[in-house]
Amino acid sequence: MPNAEQIAQTVNRYLELVGSGTADEIAELYADDATVEDPVGGGEVHIGRAAIRGFYANVENVKGKAELVTLRVAGHEAAFHFRLTLDFGASSMRIEPIDVMVFNGEGKIASMKAYWSQADAVTL
Amino acid sequence: MPNAEQIAQTVNRYLELVGSGTADEIAELYADDATVEDPVGGGEVHIGRAAIRGFYANVENVKGKAELVTLRVAGHEAAFHFRLTLDFGASSMRIEPIDVMVFNGEGKIASMKAYWSQADAVTL
Repeated sequence: MPNAEQIAQTVNRYLELVGSGTADEIAELYADDATVEDPVGGGEVHIGRAAIRGFYANVENVKGKAELVTLRVAGHEAAFHFRLTLDFGASSMRIEPIDVMVFNGEGKIASMKAYWSQADAVTL
Repeated sequence: MPNAEQIAQTVNRYLELVGSGTADEIAELYADDATVEDPVGGGEVHIGRAAIRGFYANVENVKGKAELVTLRVAGHEAAFHFRLTLDFGASSMRIEPIDVMVFNGEGKIASMKAYWSQADAVTL
């Protein structure tokens, strides 16, 4: 099982890649059979690394920056609040989700759930 | 299903009761068959309202105050960061967990998971 430091490293790497990485690089952090629900309650759960890669490919070309606000690691899970600023050229948007990740024995992300709604998205 | 406002109200009521309520009052917010894992990875999951009541009874007599830092409501779930200050008389302690709650159709808490570790507990 990954220790708290390894989990924190993966969370930080995830945020770095969400800001400026490729969908392939992000998908590589996930387990083969991982699941992603972003946002929670949005009606869609992406199952498996190929589907997850597709999900991130949709936003791969948006310039962005993700900054960690606060992180809790507990057992082989993590919950963290972060600030995502997306630059669409003519406008930009800020979203501050709380994400929850469960990690598998190899330290890969086994599931990710992102808690946010339109109410948490601000046009800058 | 409860709406976002009802979920936010229950989270705020929960924090109020964690600060100064009784175990019975807190347990009343939970569904009959709810589960509580606090902290996540701590090795113990409390199943059912009676067990949950017992869990809160252990800390019922500690004076405390819980303040919401930030809340996300998504679907019928919520994730929130809060600051819990516990007064033990001779000393006091601050813990800042991120909690995740799932709500059932009646707006009762169906599951709660608290993300924190000793590293997040500070003696004041």
